[in-house]
Amino acid sequence: MRKEGRLVRWVWWIVVVTALFFLGFTIGWFAKPSNANSEKHQDLNKNLREFLEEMQTDQIREHLRKFTRLPHLAGTEQNRKYAEQIQNEWLEFGLDSAEMVPYDILLSYPNKSQPNYISVVDQRGEEIFNTSLAEPIPPGYEDIPDIVPPYSAFSAKGQPEGDLVYVNYGRTEDFFQLEREMNVTVTGKIVIVRYGKVFRGNKVKNAMLAGAKGIIMFSDPADYWADGVQPYPKGWNLPGGGVQRGNVLNLNGAGDPLTPGYPAKEYTYRFSPEKGVGLPSIPVHPIGFHDAIHLLKNMGGQIPPNNWKGALNVSYRIGPGFTESFKSHKVRMNIHTNNQVTRVYNVIGKIRGALEPDRYVILGGHRDAWVFGGIDPMSGAAVVHETVRSAGRLLRKGWRPRRTIIFASWDAEEFGLLGSTEWAEDNARLLQERAVAYINADSAIEGMYTLRVDCTPSLHTVVYDLTKQIASPEEGEEGVSLYESWHKRDNWTNDRDAPRISKLGSGSDFEAYFIRLGIAAGRARYTKNKKTERYSSYPVYHSVYETFELVQKFYDPTFKRLRVVAQVRAGLVFLLADSQLLPLDVNEYADSLRKYAQSIAEVAQRNPDQMEMYNVSFDSLFSAVQNFTSAARDFNERLQTVNREDPLQVRIMNDQLMYLERAFIDPLGLPGRPFYRHVIFAPSSHNKYAGESFPGIYDALFDIENSADPQTAWQEVKRQISIAAFTVHAAAMTLTPPA
Amino acid sequence: MRKEGRLVRWVWWIVVVTALFFLGFTIGWFAKPSNANSEKHQDLNKNLREFLEEMQTDQIREHLRKFTRLPHLAGTEQNRKYAEQIQNEWLEFGLDSAEMVPYDILLSYPNKSQPNYISVVDQRGEEIFNTSLAEPIPPGYEDIPDIVPPYSAFSAKGQPEGDLVYVNYGRTEDFFQLEREMNVTVTGKIVIVRYGKVFRGNKVKNAMLAGAKGIIMFSDPADYWADGVQPYPKGWNLPGGGVQRGNVLNLNGAGDPLTPGYPAKEYTYRFSPEKGVGLPSIPVHPIGFHDAIHLLKNMGGQIPPNNWKGALNVSYRIGPGFTESFKSHKVRMNIHTNNQVTRVYNVIGKIRGALEPDRYVILGGHRDAWVFGGIDPMSGAAVVHETVRSAGRLLRKGWRPRRTIIFASWDAEEFGLLGSTEWAEDNARLLQERAVAYINADSAIEGMYTLRVDCTPSLHTVVYDLTKQIASPEEGEEGVSLYESWHKRDNWTNDRDAPRISKLGSGSDFEAYFIRLGIAAGRARYTKNKKTERYSSYPVYHSVYETFELVQKFYDPTFKRLRVVAQVRAGLVFLLADSQLLPLDVNEYADSLRKYAQSIAEVAQRNPDQMEMYNVSFDSLFSAVQNFTSAARDFNERLQTVNREDPLQVRIMNDQLMYLERAFIDPLGLPGRPFYRHVIFAPSSHNKYAGESFPGIYDALFDIENSADPQTAWQEVKRQISIAAFTVHAAAMTLTPPA
Repeated sequence: MRKEGRLVRWVWWIVVVTALFFLGFTIGWFAKPSNANSEKHQDLNKNLREFLEEMQTDQIREHLRKFTRLPHLAGTEQNRKYAEQIQNEWLEFGLDSAEMVPYDILLSYPNKSQPNYISVVDQRGEEIFNTSLAEPIPPGYEDIPDIVPPYSAFSAKGQPEGDLVYVNYGRTEDFFQLEREMNVTVTGKIVIVRYGKVFRGNKVKNAMLAGAKGIIMFSDPADYWADGVQPYPKGWNLPGGGVQRGNVLNLNGAGDPLTPGYPAKEYTYRFSPEKGVGLPSIPVHPIGFHDAIHLLKNMGGQIPPNNWKGALNVSYRIGPGFTESFKSHKVRMNIHTNNQVTRVYNVIGKIRGALEPDRYVILGGHRDAWVFGGIDPMSGAAVVHETVRSAGRLLRKGWRPRRTIIFASWDAEEFGLLGSTEWAEDNARLLQERAVAYINADSAIEGMYTLRVDCTPSLHTVVYDLTKQIASPEEGEEGVSLYESWHKRDNWTNDRDAPRISKLGSGSDFEAYFIRLGIAAGRARYTKNKKTERYSSYPVYHSVYETFELVQKFYDPTFKRLRVVAQVRAGLVFLLADSQLLPLDVNEYADSLRKYAQSIAEVAQRNPDQMEMYNVSFDSLFSAVQNFTSAARDFNERLQTVNREDPLQVRIMNDQLMYLERAFIDPLGLPGRPFYRHVIFAPSSHNKYAGESFPGIYDALFDIENSADPQTAWQEVKRQISIAAFTVHAAAMTLTPPA
Repeated sequence: MRKEGRLVRWVWWIVVVTALFFLGFTIGWFAKPSNANSEKHQDLNKNLREFLEEMQTDQIREHLRKFTRLPHLAGTEQNRKYAEQIQNEWLEFGLDSAEMVPYDILLSYPNKSQPNYISVVDQRGEEIFNTSLAEPIPPGYEDIPDIVPPYSAFSAKGQPEGDLVYVNYGRTEDFFQLEREMNVTVTGKIVIVRYGKVFRGNKVKNAMLAGAKGIIMFSDPADYWADGVQPYPKGWNLPGGGVQRGNVLNLNGAGDPLTPGYPAKEYTYRFSPEKGVGLPSIPVHPIGFHDAIHLLKNMGGQIPPNNWKGALNVSYRIGPGFTESFKSHKVRMNIHTNNQVTRVYNVIGKIRGALEPDRYVILGGHRDAWVFGGIDPMSGAAVVHETVRSAGRLLRKGWRPRRTIIFASWDAEEFGLLGSTEWAEDNARLLQERAVAYINADSAIEGMYTLRVDCTPSLHTVVYDLTKQIASPEEGEEGVSLYESWHKRDNWTNDRDAPRISKLGSGSDFEAYFIRLGIAAGRARYTKNKKTERYSSYPVYHSVYETFELVQKFYDPTFKRLRVVAQVRAGLVFLLADSQLLPLDVNEYADSLRKYAQSIAEVAQRNPDQMEMYNVSFDSLFSAVQNFTSAARDFNERLQTVNREDPLQVRIMNDQLMYLERAFIDPLGLPGRPFYRHVIFAPSSHNKYAGESFPGIYDALFDIENSADPQTAWQEVKRQISIAAFTVHAAAMTLTPPA
């Protein structure tokens, strides 16, 4: 018994010891985090909600109020001061860093001692009518200095004198119609065109190509007037004395005209101004419709077709020159604008990523304004400012995003997207390897109707997901999501029951990031009802009447619309920066590519006989899209089963997602446009604002109609189809398993 | 006592239980791998040693024997058969995959029914001398079909007739000397030049620019003859009937002349031959020195300077034309070579990486040969084959590299690096994001003296480390490392006591990977003694005498030299693919940049007065190099302390290392050469073979001497200095902490 007892005790001992050891071992095993880098499974949604809810209408109002008191044109002292203020406040809000990044770029200002204007001169050369030298000052701003008078930045200097020819919007097709159907030539004439439809720089280029010696642009009420709305300050319409400022360059993405391809640093080589990119060689000047009436009312020549007629009480005759009674009167432009190399300042703020500091999500928008920038751009800058404030609050509570977030306050956007492009050139290598996405923050509002989103297809899904988590800002829509509110007002098309999302065009700071570097990009703003409001942008665009009061009284009295825009922009940044797997949807890209391919093939099919004659086929493109579609589907399936505990597997899949947009970049660029390199999205050569899909093919097809040598022109179409097919195949390859 | 005893027992119990628990916990904690992805701390060196020791001289001999029995020119049936054989054997050796990748590219072949030759014709037009139609067949190969006769691939067709002018090596400076100092013009003449010094395509370009209507190239014994060595088959010298074949394109990295920038797939758009890149517009033909004597011996005109004289027993008179006695004789070229689009095949084999399948280390070399390819390229292909065999053995033992290894057998290298360039174009996006390094495997031997390595500076250190672990192949050097053997024979320079490593030039398949895509690259081979052996490449280069026997009898009877070349190439691939931290040394890049900057500034300083006059300074470049040096030093310090247990931290640092080479790529390319994009390394425009540092500045300085407008020429120098400074700054930025 004693012996047995001992044995039992020993056995018991061994069992206990073993059991205890295994208990300890097991607890030790599981107590240890399975992966040092695995996400803390923090509630992503909780942080997102906090981030969005922290954004306040009062704060946005205050930011907007603060930064619209004084004119702050690029290159001026005041715009530098605002930059410093933004830098300081971003640091106070809690960013890890915020720095001023200067560049010395070519800007353009009116000559202060010799004003620009346009005259009608009589046979003796006497000026019998002069356009106004400035816009009537809006109430409350009477004592404000440094309001730059309306001008066309980068206009050539000169005092050309001659007969006027009216060329509608000055589009390529308008000049063709003028020359071919109306048999009017503009060589040696001054053309007058109305603003709208295409970028003003394209109008100037077309006028130069047609041989004009000057060009006048005016805002026609048909394009800048909303029915039933009073002119500012009683309403938000453009007064007759209001004028749209703007640059008239044809940069095609080059940035600073004197340093194309390279950042404009102190040591950078600068071309002489004659070799600068995109500078017009003829004088250009903008006027309001009160002045335009005086130039148009006595014009002679043909009566134009109805679609050339605006809403002024004149006959819109083509010219050249005035009617018989005023035959001897000429028009003279007096333009003394100077180009000068000037220092500008971007402000760059950063939140360092916790796990992947080398992955960047960028929220950028410009700060420089033609005058006060009530809408353009400070409604956007106020939103960025509030985003930084809210992010700072989260940071103080211990949050830190997985990836690095970069905030940018760009300078000199109005002079050709210069600040953002110089920074993109400066940081091209880093951005190419590391940038996940770029969210643009120009004007946050251009109407009072609903949300407008333009973005790359892979962002569609996250935009929908996010807007379902944001509340509608519209009165009477309590409890309704932004998604529903937007969906109700702007359904996509017949083939998809979802709110409409459009392609990214150009005309704002995302250009270098998206079209040159191939970084997934998007923008969001509040917009008008496109079906009923047919004016371009918004009536007071780029005039002195873009004030704080314009927004507060008319566009967004509660500032709830600006808040939802802030929430959309900031929410996208948050989800892109903090989700373990990047919220980019490759299947959406596949769907979009299919639509674009069908659409460009249909454009070509307008010439079925020639397509057959020159043996032009889109088969290779369709087959590439098919290949991409399968690759995207397979990729997405693998994505569902990725081991989220394995940081390298996650990183590898995320890299494939990040680099997909990059795959559409052709390093050779589009024909003649080395800085437009995105094969799927770029503005067509004929309209800088509008994003075309497959712009290379589109431009080649456009040229068919105007080519004396269709054989050669169709060869270029074939070449472009081949490039597009290859690019889509190459992009598909990036989605296949890496080895 | 009983109570006390119980208490003691309880205390004892608790102590034991707690102790056991903690023991278990501790063991459990440590038993668990601290990170699923952390390296298994396998002995990297042990695997490397096994990998290198598995490579056998007998195997290399067998591979070489097997693949040199028959001519296998690019585009022929036989070269396709070798491709299939290689594919099959690579799969047998154990690669995860091996596939044939075809492209349809422009090649060039002699017309089989109309041979190419050159005649001397008398006044009646009768051919009184004709050059030989083929080289004398080497013994043992008498019955072999399909030996292509010597020709200049891509020569224009034609039968120009005229006077000869001798222009030395046909370099830019030779033509300048001819025109300016000797006052001879070659317009409408046929030029004859000797092979050597610069790429033959440059000679042709220079002749075309000078207005010649044809060009003949010959191998002068001064350039292709080693003293005291018998001609083949008794020795390794070039017989008088031997001729150097070769392409005469000026592609500047474009790849297939009809599809520049895009892979030559079935659907790819092709330019018409007139628009093809780099095709000469005049007939070109190569001859041996026996034939050359007949053309040169009766030439008239000036006696040239001594450095224009070769080693033939003729006076090397300049011409134009023959001496008085033969004045009426002319030279006629009869060239009927055809260009034709032909299918070629790369073989691509892969070993999937275990942890980072999306990181690629490439070992590539060509397979196509002008005839048998005994040296060029099969000595290299045999080495690649043996590397694959050895890697397969390791794989079967359970090894798998951290990163993916890609093996490539390129086609059509001899026609302008076409196979490798098309594949680079096809895979550009993947390579740009994922390629760690490219190791080239062209001819493994060109002499019997010592090792030769050309590589990017960041590979210097790993080359030294590796060669210290490899044994010298030289007799009498048992126990001596390859490093020591090499160091003894070719010390760097006065400023560094280490074996010489040179810059990468061009002329082999690394070009698209290094100069276009910016992938760190290197090459290694066995070479001659440069100080005593002054002939270009090796005497029988590109002749029919490049046989298996040439290598076995003369260059490497024991095959130990080829084995060390295999070990160097394979060892680099191994270390790049399997080291946890990439063995790239950023400090070496900094040192090299400093030397290059000093050296290019010295070239400029040959014109001190003009530099002052045009205000040219290298300060911005020196300052950029300084900035890079600090960034590299700081990066290296951080690298020492990286947490190797954290897979993301390791990946982030490795990405910075990998992308450093990419940072030197300028997407805009060098002036007029869009496919040469490396700002630090590219061939100068004046010698395709030689790698220049800062080629943009170098070419601009070269042009100073020949510019009618020095003001403009110096502006271009300033612009290039500015681009170089920016690029070095941008590269420095990639080494700073990512956020």
